[in-house]
Amino acid sequence: MQIKVLRNILESNQRLSDQLQAMFNEKRILVLNLMSSPGAGKTTLLEKTLTRLKHEFNMAVIEGDLQTSNDAEKIAATGAQVLQINTGRGCHLDASMIQEAVEQMDLNQLDILFVENVGNLVCPAEFSVGEDCKVTILSVVEGDDKPEKYPLIFAESSVLILNKTDLLPYVDFDPDKASNIARGLNRNIAVIPVSARTEEGLEQWYDWLRQRVNQKKNN
Amino acid sequence: MQIKVLRNILESNQRLSDQLQAMFNEKRILVLNLMSSPGAGKTTLLEKTLTRLKHEFNMAVIEGDLQTSNDAEKIAATGAQVLQINTGRGCHLDASMIQEAVEQMDLNQLDILFVENVGNLVCPAEFSVGEDCKVTILSVVEGDDKPEKYPLIFAESSVLILNKTDLLPYVDFDPDKASNIARGLNRNIAVIPVSARTEEGLEQWYDWLRQRVNQKKNN
Repeated sequence: MQIKVLRNILESNQRLSDQLQAMFNEKRILVLNLMSSPGAGKTTLLEKTLTRLKHEFNMAVIEGDLQTSNDAEKIAATGAQVLQINTGRGCHLDASMIQEAVEQMDLNQLDILFVENVGNLVCPAEFSVGEDCKVTILSVVEGDDKPEKYPLIFAESSVLILNKTDLLPYVDFDPDKASNIARGLNRNIAVIPVSARTEEGLEQWYDWLRQRVNQKKNN
Repeated sequence: MQIKVLRNILESNQRLSDQLQAMFNEKRILVLNLMSSPGAGKTTLLEKTLTRLKHEFNMAVIEGDLQTSNDAEKIAATGAQVLQINTGRGCHLDASMIQEAVEQMDLNQLDILFVENVGNLVCPAEFSVGEDCKVTILSVVEGDDKPEKYPLIFAESSVLILNKTDLLPYVDFDPDKASNIARGLNRNIAVIPVSARTEEGLEQWYDWLRQRVNQKKNN
């Protein structure tokens, strides 16, 4: 009975996600669903990206958090359009929240819409939100065993950002081990090691974004 | 309709948790529910604790993970009794899982039962598992704003362990800020800064455990 209810929720979410995706495709907006544990660096990555690429692309952000608008304020400071969703006790964003959010946003001329999900390595992986790609950010401080322990989110993601590489000298983390486990779950996953804080490695992420925006425009 | 189903699930979990707690009280076993984001250091904290206190207390562990028995193997290496629960896609432990686990364990002469929850700062806070206390571990690398952004888990916890203090020189984290926000949510929360890796600060945690075991024995 519980399982059936959950399946209904997932199916109805997927239907709405497909509708959103069709709408985003028509407008040729690249939509990325950013997921990670709390504090892995999603917001810092976005702040750097929005600042660096602001003269190349028109970008907007939907921020998901249980409480506070701290992250939305940081994003707004970059000049990007941002909309905050507070989920209360909700552990993930879903397609209906995104639908409600985009009704309040200006989607004209938009190249990229980033959806920053609730900090959680489990539940967000189950709920599509109309995105082209899921992007998982793993901080190297969390440990190189995480793709093995939380496989679904890595299996579902097109990109794995290994963040906080500036802390590698101080922790036991083998980037090759983490990458290999992730590729075992999903052989097409692109692994990009970065330090969003020091900006090391970010050019590879920006190149990946440029390529995806081009694909979207030319499809 | 969805909300009603969720409320029923929470209520029936609470009833079972109360039954478990009555059973643990009768046996005078201190039960602690350890919660954190993925990779915040729950397992390392347990490994150190089980090794350091093995001649003082009889301790056992229930390990919750989506997949793998990696953590249970690390715990077993300390000589402690351990039982692994794999939740598959489940984002938290609940009381029925603990009931099933303890039926397979030897609870005689046990002083402390540690429940290591699934790595998730959101969902585990909603589901009691018969524990005396919830213990939240926050790695300083996650950021000092986390108690504000994920308030429920901090409001519900008796102890906040600020872990990985050996990394404080390399990150922007103000322990006073994190502690003050947590105390604003829960004025009785004990805040214990530690590095489970270097063992700095762990004696304060051990003293807290000794005090709680004594209270439990003398109640």
